[in-house]
Amino acid sequence: MTFAALPKSPYYAVIFTARRAEGDHGYADAAARMEELARTMPGYLGFESARDEDGFSIAISYWETEEAITNWKQSAEHLEAQHNGRAKWYKDYKVRVSKVERAYEMKK
Amino acid sequence: MTFAALPKSPYYAVIFTARRAEGDHGYADAAARMEELARTMPGYLGFESARDEDGFSIAISYWETEEAITNWKQSAEHLEAQHNGRAKWYKDYKVRVSKVERAYEMKK
Repeated sequence: MTFAALPKSPYYAVIFTARRAEGDHGYADAAARMEELARTMPGYLGFESARDEDGFSIAISYWETEEAITNWKQSAEHLEAQHNGRAKWYKDYKVRVSKVERAYEMKK
Repeated sequence: MTFAALPKSPYYAVIFTARRAEGDHGYADAAARMEELARTMPGYLGFESARDEDGFSIAISYWETEEAITNWKQSAEHLEAQHNGRAKWYKDYKVRVSKVERAYEMKK
């Protein structure tokens, strides 16, 4: 993975932390498809993720508004992925919806 | 890594995304020390991190208030670590200060 850009604040960050269950069960294909689909949604600003070797992962999607987040959460393909996430892919996860108030960066 | 607890919203999340530079240069010891030190700071709520094999990482610390974040940012040992981070440990990083407005979880 790499960085999402820094848009002008404020905007929203959906922080998804999770522990994967054993086995793939279609996860990798679905994850790639969800990234592709999210990019087409109104208000999408970017995506970042990282995964430890032991399966603990953090994925953050960035959105212009809360409405954009709700719209993405309720899209049909994403609802199916959420169902599979609960049923097959994750042992447990947490979702935190947050408003980015300020940001800065260091580059060399 | 594992999860930080879900405190009652609202609270703050400092999202730190980074790409490591080559070599350790004291990073691992300092990172462990910073986690230990953060836990002693007023308003600290928790910490989560994940790192890809290619060195891209996401680390999130959770705090009760913006004042707690400012206080942590300005603590002497942490200022030294921030200096080393810019000078030696990271190619680049982004910091986003966000307010967690709502959260939920799935457990099995």
